[in-house]
Amino acid sequence: MPNPNTVETTFHVRYAETDQMGVVHHAAYVVWLEEGRSEWMRANGSSYARFEQDGLRMAVSEVNIRYRQAAFYDQKVTIRCWIEKVLSRQIKFGYKVVDAETHAILAEAYTKLIYVDEQGNVTQIPKKWRDFLGQPDR
Amino acid sequence: MPNPNTVETTFHVRYAETDQMGVVHHAAYVVWLEEGRSEWMRANGSSYARFEQDGLRMAVSEVNIRYRQAAFYDQKVTIRCWIEKVLSRQIKFGYKVVDAETHAILAEAYTKLIYVDEQGNVTQIPKKWRDFLGQPDR
Amino acid sequence: MPNPNTVETTFHVRYAETDQMGVVHHAAYVVWLEEGRSEWMRANGSSYARFEQDGLRMAVSEVNIRYRQAAFYDQKVTIRCWIEKVLSRQIKFGYKVVDAETHAILAEAYTKLIYVDEQGNVTQIPKKWRDFLGQPDR
Amino acid sequence: MPNPNTVETTFHVRYAETDQMGVVHHAAYVVWLEEGRSEWMRANGSSYARFEQDGLRMAVSEVNIRYRQAAFYDQKVTIRCWIEKVLSRQIKFGYKVVDAETHAILAEAYTKLIYVDEQGNVTQIPKKWRDFLGQPDR
Repeated sequence: MPNPNTVETTFHVRYAETDQMGVVHHAAYVVWLEEGRSEWMRANGSSYARFEQDGLRMAVSEVNIRYRQAAFYDQKVTIRCWIEKVLSRQIKFGYKVVDAETHAILAEAYTKLIYVDEQGNVTQIPKKWRDFLGQPDR
Repeated sequence: MPNPNTVETTFHVRYAETDQMGVVHHAAYVVWLEEGRSEWMRANGSSYARFEQDGLRMAVSEVNIRYRQAAFYDQKVTIRCWIEKVLSRQIKFGYKVVDAETHAILAEAYTKLIYVDEQGNVTQIPKKWRDFLGQPDR
Repeated sequence: MPNPNTVETTFHVRYAETDQMGVVHHAAYVVWLEEGRSEWMRANGSSYARFEQDGLRMAVSEVNIRYRQAAFYDQKVTIRCWIEKVLSRQIKFGYKVVDAETHAILAEAYTKLIYVDEQGNVTQIPKKWRDFLGQPDR
Repeated sequence: MPNPNTVETTFHVRYAETDQMGVVHHAAYVVWLEEGRSEWMRANGSSYARFEQDGLRMAVSEVNIRYRQAAFYDQKVTIRCWIEKVLSRQIKFGYKVVDAETHAILAEAYTKLIYVDEQGNVTQIPKKWRDFLGQPDR
Protein backbone atom coordinates (compact mmCIF):
# COMPACT_ATOMS: atom_id res chain seq x y z
CA MET A 1 0.00 0.00 0.00
CA PRO A 2 1.46 3.34 -0.90
CA ASN A 3 2.10 5.79 1.90
CA PRO A 4 -1.28 7.51 2.26
CA ASN A 5 0.08 10.93 3.21
CA THR A 6 -0.85 13.88 1.08
CA VAL A 7 1.73 16.59 1.49
CA GLU A 8 1.24 20.26 0.70
CA THR A 9 3.72 22.92 -0.27
CA THR A 10 2.76 26.53 -0.81
CA PHE A 11 4.58 29.41 -2.53
CA HIS A 12 4.00 32.57 -4.54
CA VAL A 13 3.97 32.40 -8.33
CA ARG A 14 7.21 33.92 -9.64
CA TYR A 15 7.12 36.61 -12.30
CA ALA A 16 9.43 34.58 -14.55
CA GLU A 17 6.82 31.82 -14.58
CA THR A 18 4.33 33.98 -16.51
CA ASP A 19 4.23 34.35 -20.28
CA GLN A 20 2.83 36.99 -22.60
CA MET A 21 -0.65 35.51 -22.27
CA GLY A 22 -0.54 37.12 -18.80
CA VAL A 23 -0.80 33.81 -16.95
CA VAL A 24 1.55 31.13 -15.69
CA HIS A 25 3.19 29.26 -18.55
CA HIS A 26 2.11 25.62 -18.65
CA ALA A 27 5.69 24.31 -18.34
CA ALA A 28 6.06 25.91 -14.90
CA TYR A 29 3.60 23.40 -13.47
CA VAL A 30 5.98 20.56 -14.29
CA VAL A 31 8.56 22.21 -12.05
CA TRP A 32 5.95 22.76 -9.34
CA LEU A 33 4.94 19.08 -9.36
CA GLU A 34 8.57 18.14 -8.89
CA GLU A 35 8.81 20.53 -5.96
CA GLY A 36 5.67 18.80 -4.61
CA ARG A 37 7.58 15.47 -4.73
CA SER A 38 10.57 17.07 -3.01
CA GLU A 39 8.31 18.31 -0.23
CA TRP A 40 6.67 14.89 0.06
CA MET A 41 10.09 13.39 0.80
CA ARG A 42 10.98 16.10 3.32
CA ALA A 43 7.60 16.04 5.08
CA ASN A 44 7.91 12.28 5.49
CA GLY A 45 11.31 12.65 7.14
CA SER A 46 13.78 12.10 4.33
CA SER A 47 14.77 13.87 1.11
CA TYR A 48 15.25 13.11 -2.54
CA ALA A 49 18.87 14.28 -2.08
CA ARG A 50 19.36 11.31 0.26
CA PHE A 51 17.74 9.01 -2.33
CA GLU A 52 20.39 10.15 -4.82
CA GLN A 53 23.15 9.69 -2.25
CA ASP A 54 22.19 6.01 -2.22
CA GLY A 55 23.03 5.85 -5.91
CA LEU A 56 19.41 5.93 -7.02
CA ARG A 57 17.46 8.24 -9.30
CA MET A 58 13.77 8.65 -10.13
CA ALA A 59 13.53 9.33 -13.86
CA VAL A 60 10.20 10.66 -15.10
CA SER A 61 8.68 8.29 -17.66
CA GLU A 62 5.32 10.04 -18.09
CA VAL A 63 3.78 13.34 -17.16
CA ASN A 64 0.12 14.25 -17.57
CA ILE A 65 -1.35 17.60 -16.59
CA ARG A 66 -4.92 18.81 -17.09
CA TYR A 67 -5.16 22.57 -16.67
CA ARG A 68 -8.42 23.75 -15.11
CA GLN A 69 -7.92 27.47 -14.42
CA ALA A 70 -5.16 29.95 -15.15
CA ALA A 71 -2.73 30.87 -12.38
CA PHE A 72 -1.35 34.39 -12.02
CA TYR A 73 1.77 36.20 -10.88
CA ASP A 74 1.98 36.69 -7.10
CA GLN A 75 -0.86 34.21 -6.45
CA LYS A 76 -0.24 31.84 -3.58
CA VAL A 77 -0.54 28.31 -4.91
CA THR A 78 -0.48 25.02 -3.06
CA ILE A 79 0.79 21.78 -4.55
CA ARG A 80 -0.89 18.70 -3.06
CA CYS A 81 1.15 15.58 -3.72
CA TRP A 82 0.51 11.95 -2.84
CA ILE A 83 1.66 8.53 -3.97
CA GLU A 84 -0.84 6.63 -6.08
CA LYS A 85 1.05 3.45 -6.70
CA VAL A 86 4.38 1.87 -5.77
CA LEU A 87 5.67 -0.91 -8.00
CA SER A 88 9.04 -2.60 -7.76
CA ARG A 89 10.37 -0.63 -10.73
CA GLN A 90 8.01 2.32 -10.95
CA ILE A 91 6.19 4.84 -8.80
CA LYS A 92 3.17 7.00 -9.64
CA PHE A 93 2.50 10.32 -7.96
CA GLY A 94 -0.79 12.23 -8.06
CA TYR A 95 -1.18 15.99 -7.68
CA LYS A 96 -3.61 18.80 -7.38
CA VAL A 97 -2.50 22.40 -7.84
CA VAL A 98 -4.90 24.66 -5.95
CA ASP A 99 -5.21 28.28 -4.96
CA ALA A 100 -3.79 28.47 -1.44
CA GLU A 101 -6.73 30.47 -0.13
CA THR A 102 -9.85 29.50 -2.07
CA HIS A 103 -8.64 25.94 -2.76
CA ALA A 104 -9.97 26.31 -6.30
CA ILE A 105 -8.40 23.62 -8.46
CA LEU A 106 -5.94 25.03 -10.98
CA ALA A 107 -4.61 21.75 -12.35
CA GLU A 108 -4.68 17.99 -11.79
CA ALA A 109 -1.78 15.78 -12.72
CA TYR A 110 0.11 12.54 -12.35
CA THR A 111 3.66 11.54 -13.09
CA LYS A 112 5.18 8.10 -13.43
CA LEU A 113 8.81 7.63 -12.53
CA ILE A 114 11.12 4.66 -12.89
CA TYR A 115 14.03 3.89 -10.61
CA VAL A 116 17.41 4.05 -12.34
CA ASP A 117 20.95 3.61 -11.08
CA GLU A 118 23.80 6.07 -11.58
CA GLN A 119 24.44 4.64 -15.05
CA GLY A 120 20.85 5.28 -16.04
CA ASN A 121 19.81 1.61 -16.05
CA VAL A 122 16.38 0.67 -14.75
CA THR A 123 16.69 -0.90 -11.33
CA GLN A 124 14.52 -2.28 -8.52
CA ILE A 125 14.03 -0.12 -5.49
CA PRO A 126 15.82 -1.35 -2.32
CA LYS A 127 13.65 -2.51 0.61
CA LYS A 128 14.64 0.51 2.74
CA TRP A 129 13.21 2.93 0.22
CA ARG A 130 10.26 0.73 -0.70
CA ASP A 131 9.26 0.75 2.96
CA PHE A 132 9.60 4.52 3.04
CA LEU A 133 7.46 5.07 -0.05
CA GLY A 134 4.93 2.41 0.87
CA GLN A 135 4.48 -1.29 0.21
CA PRO A 136 4.29 -2.22 -3.48
CA ASP A 137 0.81 -2.90 -4.74
CA ARG A 138 0.23 -6.41 -5.85
CA MET B 1 -9.75 17.00 -41.68
CA PRO B 2 -6.77 18.46 -39.88
CA ASN B 3 -3.91 19.74 -41.97
CA PRO B 4 -1.88 16.58 -42.64
CA ASN B 5 1.51 18.25 -42.62
CA THR B 6 4.09 17.04 -40.16
CA VAL B 7 6.61 19.79 -39.54
CA GLU B 8 10.10 19.32 -38.13
CA THR B 9 12.30 21.70 -36.23
CA THR B 10 15.84 20.81 -35.16
CA PHE B 11 18.16 22.37 -32.60
CA HIS B 12 20.94 21.57 -30.14
CA VAL B 13 20.07 20.78 -26.53
CA ARG B 14 21.04 23.75 -24.38
CA TYR B 15 23.18 23.28 -21.27
CA ALA B 16 20.59 25.00 -19.08
CA GLU B 17 18.11 22.29 -20.10
CA THR B 18 20.09 19.59 -18.27
CA ASP B 19 19.75 18.76 -14.58
CA GLN B 20 22.02 17.05 -12.09
CA MET B 21 20.93 13.65 -13.35
CA GLY B 22 23.14 14.52 -16.33
CA VAL B 23 20.28 14.47 -18.83
CA VAL B 24 17.68 16.90 -20.14
CA HIS B 25 15.17 17.84 -17.44
CA HIS B 26 11.67 16.60 -18.27
CA ALA B 27 10.15 20.11 -18.17
CA ALA B 28 12.32 21.22 -21.10
CA TYR B 29 10.33 18.97 -23.45
CA VAL B 30 7.19 21.01 -22.77
CA VAL B 31 9.00 24.05 -24.13
CA TRP B 32 10.26 22.05 -27.11
CA LEU B 33 6.75 20.90 -28.00
CA GLU B 34 5.60 24.50 -27.96
CA GLU B 35 8.46 25.43 -30.28
CA GLY B 36 7.29 22.56 -32.49
CA ARG B 37 3.86 24.23 -32.68
CA SER B 38 5.49 27.58 -33.47
CA GLU B 39 7.41 25.99 -36.30
CA TRP B 40 4.27 24.26 -37.57
CA MET B 41 2.64 27.69 -37.94
CA ARG B 42 5.69 29.18 -39.65
CA ALA B 43 6.23 26.22 -41.98
CA ASN B 44 2.61 26.45 -43.06
CA GLY B 45 2.98 30.12 -43.95
CA SER B 46 1.72 31.95 -40.89
CA SER B 47 2.77 32.36 -37.27
CA TYR B 48 1.31 32.08 -33.82
CA ALA B 49 2.23 35.75 -33.34
CA ARG B 50 -0.30 36.55 -36.10
CA PHE B 51 -2.87 34.35 -34.38
CA GLU B 52 -2.44 36.50 -31.25
CA GLN B 53 -2.65 39.69 -33.29
CA ASP B 54 -6.16 38.57 -34.23
CA GLY B 55 -7.08 38.66 -30.55
CA LEU B 56 -6.89 34.89 -30.15
CA ARG B 57 -4.90 32.64 -27.87
CA MET B 58 -4.36 28.90 -27.67
CA ALA B 59 -4.35 27.95 -24.01
CA VAL B 60 -2.99 24.51 -23.17
CA SER B 61 -5.65 22.40 -21.43
CA GLU B 62 -3.73 19.13 -21.31
CA VAL B 63 -0.20 17.95 -21.84
CA ASN B 64 0.91 14.32 -21.93
CA ILE B 65 4.50 13.22 -22.49
CA ARG B 66 5.89 9.70 -22.42
CA TYR B 67 9.67 9.73 -22.15
CA ARG B 68 11.40 6.90 -24.01
CA GLN B 69 15.12 7.71 -23.85
CA ALA B 70 17.18 10.38 -22.13
CA ALA B 71 18.40 13.35 -24.17
CA PHE B 72 21.79 14.92 -23.58
CA TYR B 73 23.50 18.30 -23.73
CA ASP B 74 24.66 19.27 -27.25
CA GLN B 75 22.61 16.50 -28.87
CA LYS B 76 20.76 17.55 -32.00
CA VAL B 77 17.09 16.84 -31.45
CA THR B 78 14.19 17.11 -33.88
CA ILE B 79 10.64 17.91 -32.87
CA ARG B 80 8.04 16.42 -35.22
CA CYS B 81 4.71 18.13 -34.81
CA TRP B 82 1.37 17.50 -36.49
CA ILE B 83 -2.28 18.27 -35.87
CA GLU B 84 -4.31 15.31 -34.68
CA LYS B 85 -7.71 16.88 -34.36
CA VAL B 86 -9.38 20.25 -34.96
CA LEU B 87 -12.62 20.96 -33.10
CA SER B 88 -14.51 24.22 -33.06
CA ARG B 89 -13.24 25.02 -29.56
CA GLN B 90 -10.20 22.80 -29.21
CA ILE B 91 -7.18 21.55 -31.10
CA LYS B 92 -4.96 18.55 -30.44
CA PHE B 93 -1.35 18.38 -31.54
CA GLY B 94 0.78 15.22 -31.67
CA TYR B 95 4.56 15.11 -31.36
CA LYS B 96 7.57 12.90 -31.53
CA VAL B 97 10.92 14.07 -30.18
CA VAL B 98 13.68 12.20 -32.00
CA ASP B 99 17.45 12.26 -32.29
CA ALA B 100 18.15 14.36 -35.38
CA GLU B 101 20.60 11.84 -36.80
CA THR B 102 19.57 8.36 -35.70
CA HIS B 103 15.84 9.23 -35.51
CA ALA B 104 15.66 7.24 -32.26
CA ILE B 105 12.50 8.23 -30.43
CA LEU B 106 13.20 10.19 -27.26
CA ALA B 107 9.63 11.09 -26.36
CA GLU B 108 6.05 10.94 -27.65
CA ALA B 109 3.48 13.50 -26.66
CA TYR B 110 0.22 15.25 -27.29
CA THR B 111 -1.21 18.54 -26.13
CA LYS B 112 -4.77 19.80 -26.20
CA LEU B 113 -5.37 23.52 -26.48
CA ILE B 114 -8.54 25.57 -26.29
CA TYR B 115 -9.11 28.84 -28.09
CA VAL B 116 -9.57 31.81 -25.78
CA ASP B 117 -10.08 35.51 -26.42
CA GLU B 118 -7.99 38.30 -24.91
CA GLN B 119 -10.11 38.19 -21.74
CA GLY B 120 -9.33 34.50 -21.34
CA ASN B 121 -12.84 33.30 -22.24
CA VAL B 122 -13.23 30.16 -24.32
CA THR B 123 -14.16 31.06 -27.87
CA GLN B 124 -14.79 29.46 -31.24
CA ILE B 125 -12.08 29.65 -33.83
CA PRO B 126 -12.86 31.98 -36.79
CA LYS B 127 -13.25 30.38 -40.23
CA LYS B 128 -9.99 31.92 -41.50
CA TRP B 129 -7.95 30.14 -38.86
CA ARG B 130 -10.04 26.98 -38.95
CA ASP B 131 -9.25 26.71 -42.65
CA PHE B 132 -5.58 27.24 -41.93
CA LEU B 133 -5.44 24.56 -39.24
CA GLY B 134 -7.65 22.14 -41.15
CA GLN B 135 -11.33 21.35 -41.32
CA PRO B 136 -12.90 20.43 -37.99
CA ASP B 137 -13.51 16.73 -37.58
CA ARG B 138 -17.13 15.75 -37.39
CA MET C 1 16.85 58.31 0.41
CA PRO C 2 15.85 54.85 -0.64
CA ASN C 3 13.76 52.78 1.73
CA PRO C 4 16.39 51.24 4.01
CA ASN C 5 14.62 47.95 4.60
CA THR C 6 16.39 44.79 3.68
CA VAL C 7 13.86 42.05 3.04
CA GLU C 8 14.56 38.32 3.12
CA THR C 9 12.84 35.48 1.37
CA THR C 10 13.81 31.85 1.91
CA PHE C 11 13.03 28.71 -0.09
CA HIS C 12 14.44 25.33 -1.07
CA VAL C 13 16.43 24.99 -4.29
CA ARG C 14 14.28 23.19 -6.86
CA TYR C 15 15.62 20.17 -8.73
CA ALA C 16 14.90 21.79 -12.10
CA GLU C 17 17.27 24.61 -11.12
CA THR C 18 20.30 22.30 -11.17
CA ASP C 19 22.33 21.45 -14.26
CA GLN C 20 24.61 18.57 -15.15
CA MET C 21 27.48 20.22 -13.26
CA GLY C 22 25.53 19.08 -10.19
CA VAL C 23 24.93 22.61 -8.91
CA VAL C 24 22.36 25.34 -9.44
CA HIS C 25 22.50 26.75 -12.96
CA HIS C 26 23.61 30.39 -12.98
CA ALA C 27 20.44 31.58 -14.75
CA ALA C 28 18.29 30.45 -11.79
CA TYR C 29 19.74 33.23 -9.64
CA VAL C 30 18.24 35.84 -11.97
CA VAL C 31 14.80 34.42 -11.18
CA TRP C 32 15.63 34.32 -7.46
CA LEU C 33 16.64 38.00 -7.46
CA GLU C 34 13.32 38.87 -9.08
CA GLU C 35 11.52 36.90 -6.37
CA GLY C 36 13.57 38.92 -3.86
CA ARG C 37 12.13 42.10 -5.39
CA SER C 38 8.61 40.64 -5.28
CA GLU C 39 9.05 39.87 -1.58
CA TRP C 40 10.45 43.36 -0.94
CA MET C 41 7.20 44.82 -2.30
CA ARG C 42 5.03 42.44 -0.28
CA ALA C 43 7.01 42.86 2.97
CA ASN C 44 6.67 46.63 2.63
CA GLY C 45 2.92 46.37 2.32
CA SER C 46 2.27 46.43 -1.41
CA SER C 47 3.02 44.21 -4.39
CA TYR C 48 4.52 44.44 -7.82
CA ALA C 49 1.16 43.21 -9.16
CA ARG C 50 -0.36 46.46 -7.84
CA PHE C 51 2.45 48.45 -9.48
CA GLU C 52 1.43 46.88 -12.81
CA GLN C 53 -2.25 47.56 -12.14
CA ASP C 54 -1.27 51.25 -12.10
CA GLY C 55 -0.09 50.89 -15.69
CA LEU C 56 3.57 50.78 -14.73
CA ARG C 57 6.33 48.28 -15.34
CA MET C 58 9.88 47.89 -14.09
CA ALA C 59 12.00 46.74 -17.02
CA VAL C 60 15.44 45.37 -16.16
CA SER C 61 18.15 47.42 -17.87
CA GLU C 62 21.17 45.77 -16.26
CA VAL C 63 21.89 42.68 -14.22
CA ASN C 64 25.19 41.86 -12.56
CA ILE C 65 25.82 38.74 -10.51
CA ARG C 66 29.08 37.59 -8.94
CA TYR C 67 28.91 33.95 -7.94
CA ARG C 68 30.85 33.11 -4.75
CA GLN C 69 29.91 29.52 -3.95
CA ALA C 70 27.87 26.86 -5.66
CA ALA C 71 24.32 26.21 -4.45
CA PHE C 72 22.83 22.73 -4.37
CA TYR C 73 19.48 20.97 -4.79
CA ASP C 74 17.34 20.98 -1.63
CA GLN C 75 19.53 23.63 0.05
CA LYS C 76 17.60 26.35 1.84
CA VAL C 77 18.70 29.66 0.38
CA THR C 78 17.80 33.18 1.46
CA ILE C 79 17.61 36.13 -0.88
CA ARG C 80 18.38 39.44 0.83
CA CYS C 81 17.10 42.36 -1.21
CA TRP C 82 17.35 46.10 -0.60
CA ILE C 83 17.05 49.28 -2.63
CA GLU C 84 20.36 50.97 -3.36
CA LYS C 85 19.19 53.97 -5.31
CA VAL C 86 15.93 55.55 -6.46
CA LEU C 87 16.08 57.94 -9.38
CA SER C 88 13.13 59.53 -11.15
CA ARG C 89 13.46 57.12 -14.08
CA GLN C 90 15.48 54.26 -12.63
CA ILE C 91 15.85 52.11 -9.54
CA LYS C 92 18.77 49.99 -8.40
CA PHE C 93 18.33 46.96 -6.17
CA GLY C 94 21.13 45.18 -4.30
CA TYR C 95 21.11 41.51 -3.28
CA LYS C 96 22.94 38.86 -1.40
CA VAL C 97 22.09 35.20 -1.87
CA VAL C 98 23.09 33.31 1.27
CA ASP C 99 22.70 29.86 2.76
CA ALA C 100 19.65 30.10 5.02
CA GLU C 101 21.40 28.40 7.92
CA THR C 102 25.12 29.23 7.77
CA HIS C 103 24.59 32.61 6.10
CA ALA C 104 27.53 31.82 3.82
CA ILE C 105 27.41 34.13 0.82
CA LEU C 106 26.56 32.30 -2.39
CA ALA C 107 26.25 35.32 -4.69
CA GLU C 108 26.17 39.11 -4.68
CA ALA C 109 24.25 41.06 -7.25
CA TYR C 110 22.59 44.24 -8.36
CA THR C 111 19.96 45.00 -10.96
CA LYS C 112 18.98 48.32 -12.51
CA LEU C 113 15.41 48.77 -13.69
CA ILE C 114 13.73 51.56 -15.59
CA TYR C 115 10.09 52.53 -15.27
CA VAL C 116 8.10 52.02 -18.45
CA ASP C 117 4.44 52.49 -19.28
CA GLU C 118 2.19 49.87 -20.85
CA GLN C 119 3.46 50.81 -24.32
CA GLY C 120 7.03 50.19 -23.19
CA ASN C 121 8.06 53.85 -23.16
CA VAL C 122 10.36 55.10 -20.42
CA THR C 123 8.38 57.10 -17.89
CA GLN C 124 8.83 58.91 -14.58
CA ILE C 125 7.62 57.21 -11.47
CA PRO C 126 4.50 58.78 -9.88
CA LYS C 127 4.89 60.42 -6.45
CA LYS C 128 2.82 57.67 -4.76
CA TRP C 129 5.24 54.97 -5.82
CA ARG C 130 8.33 57.14 -5.36
CA ASP C 131 7.29 57.64 -1.75
CA PHE C 132 6.80 53.92 -1.36
CA LEU C 133 10.21 53.04 -2.78
CA GLY C 134 12.00 55.90 -1.03
CA GLN C 135 12.87 59.48 -1.85
CA PRO C 136 14.95 59.88 -5.01
CA ASP C 137 18.62 60.53 -4.37
CA ARG C 138 19.82 63.92 -5.46
CA MET D 1 46.00 36.27 -27.47
CA PRO D 2 42.48 34.95 -27.31
CA ASN D 3 41.07 33.29 -30.38
CA PRO D 4 39.76 36.25 -32.40
CA ASN D 5 36.80 34.48 -33.91
CA THR D 6 33.37 35.90 -33.33
CA VAL D 7 30.80 33.17 -33.74
CA GLU D 8 27.10 33.69 -34.43
CA THR D 9 24.13 31.51 -33.62
CA THR D 10 20.60 32.40 -34.67
CA PHE D 11 17.22 31.11 -33.49
CA HIS D 12 13.61 32.13 -32.95
CA VAL D 13 12.50 33.43 -29.57
CA ARG D 14 10.44 30.73 -27.84
CA TYR D 15 7.04 31.54 -26.39
CA ALA D 16 8.06 30.22 -22.97
CA GLU D 17 10.80 32.87 -22.91
CA THR D 18 8.29 35.72 -22.75
CA ASP D 19 6.71 37.07 -19.58
CA GLN D 20 3.52 38.99 -18.87
CA MET D 21 5.23 42.25 -19.83
CA GLY D 22 4.85 40.91 -23.39
CA VAL D 23 8.60 40.72 -24.01
CA VAL D 24 11.40 38.23 -23.45
CA HIS D 25 12.11 37.74 -19.75
CA HIS D 26 15.57 38.99 -18.81
CA ALA D 27 16.69 35.59 -17.46
CA ALA D 28 16.31 34.01 -20.91
CA TYR D 29 19.30 36.00 -22.17
CA VAL D 30 21.56 34.18 -19.70
CA VAL D 31 20.60 30.91 -21.37
CA TRP D 32 21.13 32.47 -24.82
CA LEU D 33 24.64 33.63 -23.91
CA GLU D 34 25.46 30.10 -22.80
CA GLU D 35 24.19 28.76 -26.12
CA GLY D 36 26.46 31.37 -27.75
CA ARG D 37 29.43 29.81 -25.92
CA SER D 38 28.30 26.32 -26.97
CA GLU D 39 28.19 27.44 -30.59
CA TRP D 40 31.62 29.09 -30.26
CA MET D 41 33.06 25.72 -29.26
CA ARG D 42 31.28 23.89 -32.08
CA ALA D 43 32.14 26.47 -34.74
CA ASN D 44 35.80 26.25 -33.75
CA GLY D 45 35.78 22.50 -34.20
CA SER D 46 35.20 21.14 -30.72
CA SER D 47 32.43 21.19 -28.14
CA TYR D 48 31.89 21.99 -24.51
CA ALA D 49 30.73 18.38 -24.08
CA ARG D 50 34.28 17.30 -25.01
CA PHE D 51 35.67 19.81 -22.50
CA GLU D 52 33.62 18.09 -19.80
CA GLN D 53 34.72 14.64 -21.00
CA ASP D 54 38.26 15.76 -20.12
CA GLY D 55 37.13 16.21 -16.52
CA LEU D 56 36.91 19.99 -16.78
CA ARG D 57 34.11 22.44 -16.17
CA MET D 58 33.68 26.16 -16.81
CA ALA D 59 31.82 27.59 -13.83
CA VAL D 60 30.36 31.06 -14.30
CA SER D 61 31.81 33.47 -11.74
CA GLU D 62 30.24 36.67 -13.06
CA VAL D 63 27.52 37.63 -15.50
CA ASN D 64 26.76 41.16 -16.64
CA ILE D 65 24.03 42.03 -19.13
CA ARG D 66 22.94 45.48 -20.27
CA TYR D 67 19.55 45.35 -21.98
CA ARG D 68 19.14 47.84 -24.83
CA GLN D 69 15.84 46.92 -26.50
CA ALA D 70 13.11 44.45 -25.76
CA ALA D 71 13.00 41.18 -27.70
CA PHE D 72 9.73 39.55 -28.75
CA TYR D 73 8.22 36.14 -29.31
CA ASP D 74 9.00 34.65 -32.75
CA GLN D 75 11.71 37.25 -33.44
CA LYS D 76 14.87 35.86 -34.98
CA VAL D 77 17.75 36.79 -32.72
CA THR D 78 21.48 36.29 -33.24
CA ILE D 79 23.96 35.78 -30.43
CA ARG D 80 27.44 37.04 -31.29
CA CYS D 81 30.03 35.52 -28.97
CA TRP D 82 33.79 36.04 -28.76
CA ILE D 83 36.56 35.50 -26.25
CA GLU D 84 37.78 38.68 -24.58
CA LYS D 85 40.47 37.29 -22.34
CA VAL D 86 42.07 33.93 -21.54
CA LEU D 87 43.86 33.62 -18.21
CA SER D 88 45.33 30.46 -16.74
CA ARG D 89 42.42 30.09 -14.33
CA GLN D 90 39.71 32.20 -15.91
CA ILE D 91 38.14 33.08 -19.25
CA LYS D 92 36.02 36.07 -20.23
CA PHE D 93 33.50 35.94 -23.05
CA GLY D 94 31.89 38.97 -24.69
CA TYR D 95 28.46 38.99 -26.40
CA LYS D 96 26.07 41.04 -28.41
CA VAL D 97 22.48 39.93 -28.82
CA VAL D 98 21.12 41.43 -32.05
CA ASP D 99 18.05 41.20 -34.23
CA ALA D 100 18.96 38.68 -36.92
CA GLU D 101 17.70 40.89 -39.73
CA THR D 102 18.16 44.54 -38.73
CA HIS D 103 21.20 43.82 -36.54
CA ALA D 104 19.75 46.23 -33.96
CA ILE D 105 21.48 45.62 -30.64
CA LEU D 106 19.16 44.07 -28.06
CA ALA D 107 21.73 43.46 -25.33
CA GLU D 108 25.45 43.56 -24.59
CA ALA D 109 27.05 41.25 -22.08
CA TYR D 110 30.09 39.54 -20.69
CA THR D 111 30.57 36.49 -18.53
CA LYS D 112 33.63 35.39 -16.57
CA LEU D 113 34.14 31.69 -16.00
CA ILE D 114 36.68 29.79 -13.93
CA TYR D 115 37.97 26.33 -14.71
CA VAL D 116 37.07 23.73 -12.12
CA ASP D 117 37.69 20.00 -11.90
CA GLU D 118 35.03 17.34 -11.32
CA GLN D 119 35.19 17.98 -7.57
CA GLY D 120 34.47 21.66 -8.12
CA ASN D 121 37.99 22.86 -7.24
CA VAL D 122 39.52 25.69 -9.22
CA THR D 123 42.10 24.36 -11.61
CA GLN D 124 44.44 25.53 -14.36
CA ILE D 125 43.45 24.89 -17.91
CA PRO D 126 45.55 22.21 -19.69
CA LYS D 127 47.73 23.33 -22.62
CA LYS D 128 45.55 21.52 -25.17
CA TRP D 129 42.52 23.56 -24.25
CA ARG D 130 44.47 26.77 -23.65
CA ASP D 131 45.73 26.50 -27.23
CA PHE D 132 42.19 25.94 -28.46
CA LEU D 133 40.77 28.95 -26.63
CA GLY D 134 43.75 31.17 -27.40
CA GLN D 135 47.03 32.06 -25.73
CA PRO D 136 46.66 33.50 -22.23
CA ASP D 137 47.08 37.26 -22.05
CA ARG D 138 50.06 38.42 -20.07
